[in-house]
Amino acid sequence: MINVTIWNENLHERSNEEVQKVYPEGIHGAIAEGIANDDFEVHTATLEQLEHGLTQDVLDRTDVLLWWGHRGHEMVADEIVDRVHQRVLDGMGLIVLHSGHFSKIFKKLMGTSCDLKWREADEKERIWVVDPAHPIAAGLGEYFELEREEMYGEHFDIPKPDELILVSWFEGGEVFRSGCTYHRGNGKIFYFRPGHETYPTFYNRNVLKVIANGIRWAAQDGAVKPVYGNHKPLEEIKVK
Amino acid sequence: MINVTIWNENLHERSNEEVQKVYPEGIHGAIAEGIANDDFEVHTATLEQLEHGLTQDVLDRTDVLLWWGHRGHEMVADEIVDRVHQRVLDGMGLIVLHSGHFSKIFKKLMGTSCDLKWREADEKERIWVVDPAHPIAAGLGEYFELEREEMYGEHFDIPKPDELILVSWFEGGEVFRSGCTYHRGNGKIFYFRPGHETYPTFYNRNVLKVIANGIRWAAQDGAVKPVYGNHKPLEEIKVK
Amino acid sequence: MINVTIWNENLHERSNEEVQKVYPEGIHGAIAEGIANDDFEVHTATLEQLEHGLTQDVLDRTDVLLWWGHRGHEMVADEIVDRVHQRVLDGMGLIVLHSGHFSKIFKKLMGTSCDLKWREADEKERIWVVDPAHPIAAGLGEYFELEREEMYGEHFDIPKPDELILVSWFEGGEVFRSGCTYHRGNGKIFYFRPGHETYPTFYNRNVLKVIANGIRWAAQDGAVKPVYGNHKPLEEIKVK
Amino acid sequence: MINVTIWNENLHERSNEEVQKVYPEGIHGAIAEGIANDDFEVHTATLEQLEHGLTQDVLDRTDVLLWWGHRGHEMVADEIVDRVHQRVLDGMGLIVLHSGHFSKIFKKLMGTSCDLKWREADEKERIWVVDPAHPIAAGLGEYFELEREEMYGEHFDIPKPDELILVSWFEGGEVFRSGCTYHRGNGKIFYFRPGHETYPTFYNRNVLKVIANGIRWAAQDGAVKPVYGNHKPLEEIKVK
Repeated sequence: MINVTIWNENLHERSNEEVQKVYPEGIHGAIAEGIANDDFEVHTATLEQLEHGLTQDVLDRTDVLLWWGHRGHEMVADEIVDRVHQRVLDGMGLIVLHSGHFSKIFKKLMGTSCDLKWREADEKERIWVVDPAHPIAAGLGEYFELEREEMYGEHFDIPKPDELILVSWFEGGEVFRSGCTYHRGNGKIFYFRPGHETYPTFYNRNVLKVIANGIRWAAQDGAVKPVYGNHKPLEEIKVK
Repeated sequence: MINVTIWNENLHERSNEEVQKVYPEGIHGAIAEGIANDDFEVHTATLEQLEHGLTQDVLDRTDVLLWWGHRGHEMVADEIVDRVHQRVLDGMGLIVLHSGHFSKIFKKLMGTSCDLKWREADEKERIWVVDPAHPIAAGLGEYFELEREEMYGEHFDIPKPDELILVSWFEGGEVFRSGCTYHRGNGKIFYFRPGHETYPTFYNRNVLKVIANGIRWAAQDGAVKPVYGNHKPLEEIKVK
Repeated sequence: MINVTIWNENLHERSNEEVQKVYPEGIHGAIAEGIANDDFEVHTATLEQLEHGLTQDVLDRTDVLLWWGHRGHEMVADEIVDRVHQRVLDGMGLIVLHSGHFSKIFKKLMGTSCDLKWREADEKERIWVVDPAHPIAAGLGEYFELEREEMYGEHFDIPKPDELILVSWFEGGEVFRSGCTYHRGNGKIFYFRPGHETYPTFYNRNVLKVIANGIRWAAQDGAVKPVYGNHKPLEEIKVK
Repeated sequence: MINVTIWNENLHERSNEEVQKVYPEGIHGAIAEGIANDDFEVHTATLEQLEHGLTQDVLDRTDVLLWWGHRGHEMVADEIVDRVHQRVLDGMGLIVLHSGHFSKIFKKLMGTSCDLKWREADEKERIWVVDPAHPIAAGLGEYFELEREEMYGEHFDIPKPDELILVSWFEGGEVFRSGCTYHRGNGKIFYFRPGHETYPTFYNRNVLKVIANGIRWAAQDGAVKPVYGNHKPLEEIKVK
């Protein structure tokens, strides 16, 4: 059983009628329903909750955390960001969705600006698999399409991904590294591009498949626990 | 259920008394017993068998192939190497052990000489985990030791590993990239260093754990099947 | 001074009037003129020449070899391919252009099928820089366009590039990893996508800039020369 | 001409007689003298200076910044760290030496704890080249030795290096990824392990060669300048 916590700032859904219609249960609600699965124990948390719903206890019980944020990035308390950061280094998986690219936690883990190009123009996005052997792509076709999405374009200012799995094509002339993995400490991180709040992206079965695959990939048992600091030499070798 | 085929040239075991004592059932037999597991269906194959035991049918049913060879590299028929190569590109996992670094199949997949330094001097090897989040390291300590092994030293002439998981330290002054992964086509490849025929390495529980982890990592369901060749454009875009 | 040898099969140019008009001096001739530079000593070689113009002596004097081939891949002698392969491992740079993706030498160095999707439809290609810090991208804008090119699309069956520098967008809906680097042995390899024989791609100043940058990147002085085989231990450590 | 600024906290040298004897001109002074070269314009800066000697003007004129710190990590003002961070993303090279692994700037760029094992026991370090084609290794032998150094051991909690060039062997049983490169934004970063303040490491000609090579590698002309934010589509494609 993998314990999944879906974090969503849940701001657009409560203030914008258009978004409300698309996501009446919030983006977190749509994802929770879409990935429901006998292997996942799914909970949600939102910005407005005490400690943004991310108490130490919640994080300690979370195997994989999903993160959707946009307007509220600056409203996330630094203390909570530091707590999530530490849990990732300790082994919690993290899946950062769409506009989460600019979240404090993603920027802190990446060390770069995480900036990009964007355009809202109801464009078609075609997401190509460039690493067909990767478990996050399991069950997909060679590509899948989203009829309307916000465009994100290169240059995407991230560290070189450990693995590049998906590359998006946009109607208006851009490409984007849309599925990227990283190890940071004992934690596995997956950035996945689509998911603008005005489109029904999180009901798309391919998007949900990628997210579910990402969760399985990011969860782990038995990670090695490194010890840091002063270390003794091999006994049988006489260090001068 | 993961179908595992352990291929061993099985030459030293039949011609060298010292090796026979260490591996009375052959290296393949020791590994087969050591990784026995409800999730694995394990078979073995050896050089002397018809088609080296690697018929198209056997390969088609194999999810992950293990490869141990040394003296007999040149005795492996090119036709069989091509067949294994194609199966790897089509998605079969491949775990190359120790002296398999010089096998035809590994060199064909790597594109380099795969050469290295070596020394047989009963040295201690300490194998360090450098990527603690990787599933192939699951359940290990920060390092494990083999009291006596053949030394392999850098430079190891391989392509940059997709992932570097293990680095060996040798008593006599060398280091070695001992656990390396690659994707080639739809196949996942794991090179794992230890396993000289005169040492009881394949009875070591950490070695067996790494091999079993490697098998789980290399096996896959639902890999994307790319189509190559002439491709039609998006219908709604008029290509001039 | 960097010694550059531009190899071209030079078949289309001599048999197809359309290509002849675009490249009256051959693709090799156009590149040679386009990259002419005080730092480069440029020579050309073609398939029809004795030993395809790639004698041991020529290769020994070559710092960076460029390779354009298409129809004649199978006409390149295996012996010459082995010779080029060895020179790359020994430190010669190699720049593989466009349809050279299917050349014997590239496939031998990559270990994969190197297959891809393609379409000849006079489409626009937009080549985006995804690693702006890389010297091969120096002096480019964020992207550059080729008004008409052959489409190459993912999945491109290559090993994960050591560095991914350029990603192409095509009008008809595809993306492609168009600028990829690899180290193989002591040699540096750069694959660069554009360059179909019926388009004036090799007169484009951005294409020429990338090729010239690639040559500077792939050339090297002072590479470490590894020694392989039996290796002595540290003297002061007594190996048992 | 490459403008190099060597930053050193310069604390041990002024408070510890042993260090003073080894580095009477400070670690920065020793490096400055050791890498002196017609291609480098070298300046130094230290913690005690106004703005730690790293004014905006100094950074703007710096092509490559070297960083040695240890005891004074916490004394470096966050404002200066942010300034250096921004300059790296904008294209300044950064070479982090030894205990600089725990500097604020390195941790901010890496996003991990950057922790490691260590031991001060006058041990021999043998630094092996694992990527002989890399320009940072140019002119080295297959390995070089430092008779006495502080040990740093794995696990080193860093992101997977873009390139791993050097791996250290230590007498007491450890290994370490000692030469690692990263791109972050437009900046190139090189971490180089040796350099404990009580040893004459920065007079060693191989160490100086690696540092000088690193400076040449990290300096750049003509980097692409990405533009972020709202982006217009291709004109000739009608976005619905």
